[in-house]
Amino acid sequence: MEKFDIHIIGCGAALPTPRHLCSTQIVNIREKLFMLDCAEGTQLALRQQRLNFSNLQAILLTHIHGDHVFGLLGMLSTLGLLGRGQELHVYGPSPLCALFQPQIDHFCAESPYSIILHEIDPREPHLIYEDRSLTITSLPLTHRVPCCGYLLKEKPTLPHIRRDAIDFYHIPVSQINNIKAGLDWTCPDGTVIPNNRLTTPAAPPRSYAYCTDTRFRPQLVPLLQDVTCLYHEATFLSEQLPLAKKTHHSTALQAATIARDAQAGRLIIGHFSSRYKDESLLLQEARQLFANTILAEEGLKISL
Amino acid sequence: MEKFDIHIIGCGAALPTPRHLCSTQIVNIREKLFMLDCAEGTQLALRQQRLNFSNLQAILLTHIHGDHVFGLLGMLSTLGLLGRGQELHVYGPSPLCALFQPQIDHFCAESPYSIILHEIDPREPHLIYEDRSLTITSLPLTHRVPCCGYLLKEKPTLPHIRRDAIDFYHIPVSQINNIKAGLDWTCPDGTVIPNNRLTTPAAPPRSYAYCTDTRFRPQLVPLLQDVTCLYHEATFLSEQLPLAKKTHHSTALQAATIARDAQAGRLIIGHFSSRYKDESLLLQEARQLFANTILAEEGLKISL
Repeated sequence: MEKFDIHIIGCGAALPTPRHLCSTQIVNIREKLFMLDCAEGTQLALRQQRLNFSNLQAILLTHIHGDHVFGLLGMLSTLGLLGRGQELHVYGPSPLCALFQPQIDHFCAESPYSIILHEIDPREPHLIYEDRSLTITSLPLTHRVPCCGYLLKEKPTLPHIRRDAIDFYHIPVSQINNIKAGLDWTCPDGTVIPNNRLTTPAAPPRSYAYCTDTRFRPQLVPLLQDVTCLYHEATFLSEQLPLAKKTHHSTALQAATIARDAQAGRLIIGHFSSRYKDESLLLQEARQLFANTILAEEGLKISL
Repeated sequence: MEKFDIHIIGCGAALPTPRHLCSTQIVNIREKLFMLDCAEGTQLALRQQRLNFSNLQAILLTHIHGDHVFGLLGMLSTLGLLGRGQELHVYGPSPLCALFQPQIDHFCAESPYSIILHEIDPREPHLIYEDRSLTITSLPLTHRVPCCGYLLKEKPTLPHIRRDAIDFYHIPVSQINNIKAGLDWTCPDGTVIPNNRLTTPAAPPRSYAYCTDTRFRPQLVPLLQDVTCLYHEATFLSEQLPLAKKTHHSTALQAATIARDAQAGRLIIGHFSSRYKDESLLLQEARQLFANTILAEEGLKISL
């Protein structure tokens, strides 16, 4: 199976602590790397985790709060010092350009590569990246400032040819593509061999959704339907629901509600408030509703 | 003796590595803290080193290159989240205000304390801070961009009273301040007791100079005369002198030359290029000229 790995670089909330860096992840899909948020210390954590970031395709920022972006300039600057030539695209809601273009102009003036900022309207989903095998779509979230999540989704692939059946029916090589595309095969004697005898279904497309920071937002559910893996912030326990509402964050139970209703394959919770010394309480709360939940943790790698 | 401690938070050059953070130091003088530069990861390193930063008085930036300032916003933002009330002054050359005021307005909009930026003209020394016991003066440096070092210097203190002599000559308490100020004492019989029999000299004022990043700049020597401790960048070995000149940095030998000529008490070298896996080569080179040299290192504390 092609690589689809999620690396948790940081999963703490507003304050970095010795236990948690702030929000950052790397998603490695077939050796193309995508960075989700970029907290202070990201470039160093990547080195410590020996993640080769030369194949970084894009940086996707959810919103312009410090705990999600304070590593951006350092990251961009270091890529330049390391001699990157390939242009790099950075996506995020307003005021991405107003705040970061002047900084990039100053700090990356001598960088040998181009940095292109793209401001996303976070009120609607937008297709922001597409290649042969992958799409990335922004997801509207509800936070104190313009904010969006991201859905990274493989494109459906063609079914696999059953070599034994092809040989058995003496099907010529010239017909393989038609059969992969779904056609049946008609033998010289007129017998029709249905396509499902000649192929095995492709693995279903895998998908990963990154949803932070946000209030409980049931409108997300249809956009996340059947997602293979959902990362959803769970800043608080339900006992802090009023604070969650006030600060536009979610509880662990609310994260689990979204995962359950979207029929997600699994749920990762993160963006833990530093008030919780024992995060297993957050895990317990989410698992009440959605058993296949795990806690994010620095250094954790999840392969889909 | 009152506290005068230098804490090395980071001492690497442009690229942070697992071995070295970029340039940052904390100077603790009588429990008032001053930060020199503020590289990415500073706030976390302070926590890891258990340095209490609530008494931070000012942040002194040498120049607006990323490896000296990428931790600033995170630091300022975290101080706000921790509830700081006292205003904080940040000093540095242009374009300090143009680049950071918009960022502070955005990221620290809800901070409960004021952040005041002060742009320093780096072409002349300027007194930028003064209290009862301390002055801080900027020092002109020569780098690719406007850049200044800082000299932190205790004010001279009054001599100590010799309690035994005061008792012996029955000198009344009302005269103690005069004697501290240098007056002799005339006994009722007319004998004059010279001041040096009644006092012991105060400890000489201690001073610390932080000089990075800079080309070899002999004009610094008179400004650094008799400094107790000098931190001077030593990015390169002498064999890289052409590169040092080109990039406006110093060699270890040049750092030692400044220390020797200024008759510094000791020399700390830092801002090591990441090309040197074995920094003892830099140390050896400096010690050829100035024996009392040490290498900076993360976590090192030097008490003057």
